[in-house]
Amino acid sequence: MRMENNLWHNILHVRNTSPLVHSITNYVVMNNTANALLAIGASPIMAHAKSEVEEMVNISHSLVINIGTIDEYWEESMLLAAKKANELQKPWILDPVGAGATSYRDSVLSKILSLNPTVIRGNASEIIALSKAGKTITKGVDSTAKSNEAVEAAKTLVKNHKSIVCISGETDIIISENQEIHLKNGHPMMTKVTGLGCTATALIGSFIGVIDNKTEAIIAAMSLLGIAGEIAAQQSAGPGSLQLNIIDKLYNITEEEFSAHLKMIKQ
Amino acid sequence: MRMENNLWHNILHVRNTSPLVHSITNYVVMNNTANALLAIGASPIMAHAKSEVEEMVNISHSLVINIGTIDEYWEESMLLAAKKANELQKPWILDPVGAGATSYRDSVLSKILSLNPTVIRGNASEIIALSKAGKTITKGVDSTAKSNEAVEAAKTLVKNHKSIVCISGETDIIISENQEIHLKNGHPMMTKVTGLGCTATALIGSFIGVIDNKTEAIIAAMSLLGIAGEIAAQQSAGPGSLQLNIIDKLYNITEEEFSAHLKMIKQ
Amino acid sequence: MRMENNLWHNILHVRNTSPLVHSITNYVVMNNTANALLAIGASPIMAHAKSEVEEMVNISHSLVINIGTIDEYWEESMLLAAKKANELQKPWILDPVGAGATSYRDSVLSKILSLNPTVIRGNASEIIALSKAGKTITKGVDSTAKSNEAVEAAKTLVKNHKSIVCISGETDIIISENQEIHLKNGHPMMTKVTGLGCTATALIGSFIGVIDNKTEAIIAAMSLLGIAGEIAAQQSAGPGSLQLNIIDKLYNITEEEFSAHLKMIKQ
Repeated sequence: MRMENNLWHNILHVRNTSPLVHSITNYVVMNNTANALLAIGASPIMAHAKSEVEEMVNISHSLVINIGTIDEYWEESMLLAAKKANELQKPWILDPVGAGATSYRDSVLSKILSLNPTVIRGNASEIIALSKAGKTITKGVDSTAKSNEAVEAAKTLVKNHKSIVCISGETDIIISENQEIHLKNGHPMMTKVTGLGCTATALIGSFIGVIDNKTEAIIAAMSLLGIAGEIAAQQSAGPGSLQLNIIDKLYNITEEEFSAHLKMIKQ
Repeated sequence: MRMENNLWHNILHVRNTSPLVHSITNYVVMNNTANALLAIGASPIMAHAKSEVEEMVNISHSLVINIGTIDEYWEESMLLAAKKANELQKPWILDPVGAGATSYRDSVLSKILSLNPTVIRGNASEIIALSKAGKTITKGVDSTAKSNEAVEAAKTLVKNHKSIVCISGETDIIISENQEIHLKNGHPMMTKVTGLGCTATALIGSFIGVIDNKTEAIIAAMSLLGIAGEIAAQQSAGPGSLQLNIIDKLYNITEEEFSAHLKMIKQ
Repeated sequence: MRMENNLWHNILHVRNTSPLVHSITNYVVMNNTANALLAIGASPIMAHAKSEVEEMVNISHSLVINIGTIDEYWEESMLLAAKKANELQKPWILDPVGAGATSYRDSVLSKILSLNPTVIRGNASEIIALSKAGKTITKGVDSTAKSNEAVEAAKTLVKNHKSIVCISGETDIIISENQEIHLKNGHPMMTKVTGLGCTATALIGSFIGVIDNKTEAIIAAMSLLGIAGEIAAQQSAGPGSLQLNIIDKLYNITEEEFSAHLKMIKQ
């Protein structure tokens, strides 16, 4: 049970080291993302000016790129920041929100993908669209595609870009060069809170900033959010209260709660 | 009581069809707006890049234009998107936030208005300013103007732009070419939560995307929000908890609750 | 006990006069800031277009400049607005978020500072970096610098720019030309909610808009937020619920609660 023990250790490590996470993300989720990062003990920076993103990458432990509300200016900032992260060998994660929805979005993703993100996290539709350079039409940010197709798409991305890929959904699937891990935590009501996928990406961003084993970092972040959501949903009358109860639970979750709820399967 | 029955039917129809609503809206309310749309079963898209707004309109059921934090770039995006919606005969709604506050805001509104929105929703001051091409000074986003003046302004807008107009306030007034409906739901504490007017606009946006009778779509959306706010306020110590309790109630409201609270008057 | 009585009087004065506060602030905190302003009875305006910021300053009681998510466009808007506020002799406040983190941020702050803000509010690191034209590296938005060094930095700013400076932290320190006031309200969990510093700045912005004694205005705003946070934290399982409980308490706080909790020390 080595990895299970490591997961809680990784959660404590983030709390204790308070990694500085630079997020260039979308307007819709900025407040919640920052609160989720603070709740787990990380320190959020949100800055997008072309005049400063490279310096921000330099002082940060890791970088989060989320294209949810991309435009031409933010596209340039994201590319500058990702190149700088590569130059400084800092880990970074791509969240390809809405991949496949428009040709512009896919052209941006193609440029970012060519920089070989350390980690990619999206739902099944987004991962499939990303691997196809966007030939799938996604319906908003909801996933309807089959997870088998997404797993194949993820394996293509792992091979072509040396990334680790996390497909989030009812089962979260983490795929690296030689591992496939399934996490079965979470709650259906979580799909009714905007931006919890973006929160997942940001949490992974904080874990990869201070944990060497990137696959374990992703598993720890995803299981933490899934378990916090599962516990929080039991206390929530709807998605409004769920949004804040998840933040509370990310902040006050105990090792006992985490261990009792973890549902991880190594393939 | 045909229309009353249709209202709940319309609410269920939105839940079941999950319309894709493309919102080009303001930064302040994006998170809440997305959560409100998810809570009623709709699927939010928020995208504003000039490079992709037309494609986003193409895949959406309807379009929401809200000028709350407008600037020169977003102005162009909004005009591109509204023109595309007209070209594709998709319904769209204008929220003229802060109409009359500055000459720039009024010049933008004049351009958008010339594209003849399917629906316009604003408070009394905004509707008056909009109909005058902005000769009234509004105090922020609060309404102080008399509702009689607003009703006359709305009738002018209906006549000149073939729009249906919703004046929101203590009484919500929906004015179409041949109908005037008054809704008396809601709670005074709702004026202390930022962006509930914007939420109303977004909810209308989702209803007009999948309901043919646009007047009934507006009435269903406005009464749903008013009733959810009324019930939620009874459980809220202040506007902080009201903001999330409304989201919860939009998600879990029952037909019994809806019917018991509806206060609709046909003029 | 003259000042203590004035503080509650000032809180009531804001509730009764409902000052219009124009905020050019960062994306992360816009929703919460607007809600906090509404909760205390103020009227928020958030607008940043270069085409309208000057007119918005003209109709407002005061201006808030917060550089959290600054870029080149917003920089220009902030400078236009601050110049207009000076021209019209309207009070304005600067929140130098992340001062010292990048050379761009410091160059922007240097320009804004040259316009002599009525009030400056930041954490200790930010105030030190601001007074040094940015030679300190700040870690995100958290303060680690010693408060003594910050007090000296604040005194330099007071002298050079005729500003009143508020250093927020475990103890909030307000420094004017001839006064130094310490406030010991607040709760450690408040540092886990994003943007409460920005909320403090916005509340000060609303108080200075309608209260002549600017030092008392700042003390009233800061003690109100600290006390609301202190009471709210006792009812909060974590920072998620704290965020909304603070809004509720800002809305429903009584004179008895305020007086019972106030911890003010005049140096």
